[in-house]
Amino acid sequence: MPLTTRPQAVLIDLAGVLHIDDQPIPGAVGALRTLRSSGLPLRFLTNTTRSPTSRIVATLRQMGFAIEPDEIQTAVIATRHLVEQRKLRPHYLVHPDIVDEIGPSHPEPDAVVLGDAGPHFTFASLNHAFRLLMRGYPFIAMARNRYFKESDGLTLDVGAFVNCLEFSSGVTAEVVGKPAATFFQSALDQLGIGPEQAILIGDDLSDDIGGAQAVGIPGILVRTGKFRAGDDAHPQIRPSNVVADFPAAVNYLLDC
Amino acid sequence: MPLTTRPQAVLIDLAGVLHIDDQPIPGAVGALRTLRSSGLPLRFLTNTTRSPTSRIVATLRQMGFAIEPDEIQTAVIATRHLVEQRKLRPHYLVHPDIVDEIGPSHPEPDAVVLGDAGPHFTFASLNHAFRLLMRGYPFIAMARNRYFKESDGLTLDVGAFVNCLEFSSGVTAEVVGKPAATFFQSALDQLGIGPEQAILIGDDLSDDIGGAQAVGIPGILVRTGKFRAGDDAHPQIRPSNVVADFPAAVNYLLDC
Repeated sequence: MPLTTRPQAVLIDLAGVLHIDDQPIPGAVGALRTLRSSGLPLRFLTNTTRSPTSRIVATLRQMGFAIEPDEIQTAVIATRHLVEQRKLRPHYLVHPDIVDEIGPSHPEPDAVVLGDAGPHFTFASLNHAFRLLMRGYPFIAMARNRYFKESDGLTLDVGAFVNCLEFSSGVTAEVVGKPAATFFQSALDQLGIGPEQAILIGDDLSDDIGGAQAVGIPGILVRTGKFRAGDDAHPQIRPSNVVADFPAAVNYLLDC
Repeated sequence: MPLTTRPQAVLIDLAGVLHIDDQPIPGAVGALRTLRSSGLPLRFLTNTTRSPTSRIVATLRQMGFAIEPDEIQTAVIATRHLVEQRKLRPHYLVHPDIVDEIGPSHPEPDAVVLGDAGPHFTFASLNHAFRLLMRGYPFIAMARNRYFKESDGLTLDVGAFVNCLEFSSGVTAEVVGKPAATFFQSALDQLGIGPEQAILIGDDLSDDIGGAQAVGIPGILVRTGKFRAGDDAHPQIRPSNVVADFPAAVNYLLDC
């Protein structure tokens, strides 16, 4: 899917693309400023479910990224909408930091919702969720990411624990964040554009580039964050372009 | 695979068949005595990897089951043999109670070995194993069981955490215990019989009955332990017989 015309909006993944932990990718702060000066609408899509939107925005601003809360679309907020829409009473196995944003677990649950609980994934918390799933409750996962990059190395993401519970319970999770088509479609709807008018910049071949590709959005893969050698030679998932980093992606876009 | 002649040896799963936690299945102690009096050689095959053989035997004896250590074949001991044979230097993510039996983790590992660590499956211990797997080390799992029955309910077994790590690392584990063909074959070799001359009694449709069936050993499924409604109507895995419990299995066998 090579780009033929300049896109009308840019969807941008956060962790691994703009920053790693609390460190901006070199040149990314200036590159975002350059991209903004082009006037293209931006939308930031994140599967990070360890922090509420307010903290994500605050951390980005501390690093120098000027981002407004309403430009961010998170898997946490998308999950909250889905839970409200379906009138579910979830048991939440999530990070304590997002409880204020997602709400407390229901004392008499009828669903299990998983976010990236990080160190709060314990045998006890997983076994409790497993027993609820064995009652036949629906299983909703905010994301299914395999891992992400921290400053000291790659780290297990929520997908590991989604698979853990799926295997033992026999219940398949419904994923809310990337690569779910509804997650990308929701961003397009709010921007009022079609998929081929947008472009996505991400570091996750499968969930960013593959997910966007499945709904018709071309993707630019950056070689930062969780990018690993060979990601640029996948038989099915074909980025429009593979570039060194976010600044290179911005240059490529503005040259279109 | 209906039985045509009386078997020449009986392979028996332990947890869920003879006992649940530290409680014998009603009538199982007497039934084992009856089975022994028939003179048939017995072999007990267990994927339980939370306890060393000595404690498994002691717990069974406390419940009244007369079982000798050399009649038990465990996934822990089979793993130790495999590690020795291949001269591996594993990092062990296992229950501390089996460290004396399996050995300590190597400070410079070249393999990852998983047993049922139970509450010792933490985010930190799993993430450490994940990072080793991302170096391309081979992944050996003592078992891949989905869950087992404790007195207070079903409990996540090691298979959940095998799948957790497989998903995120992309490395597929080699399973040592049931349903691995080598595990059943090893029991047959020591008994000096062919698969069709043995019979297995188990509560796990997939790992006991399915595993035995794959090497040609007929299986009797008991409706105790982890048995769940529908296990007796699986399209591919067909027990020779499905009976209420271990005493009923012994009656069936001795009537052949």
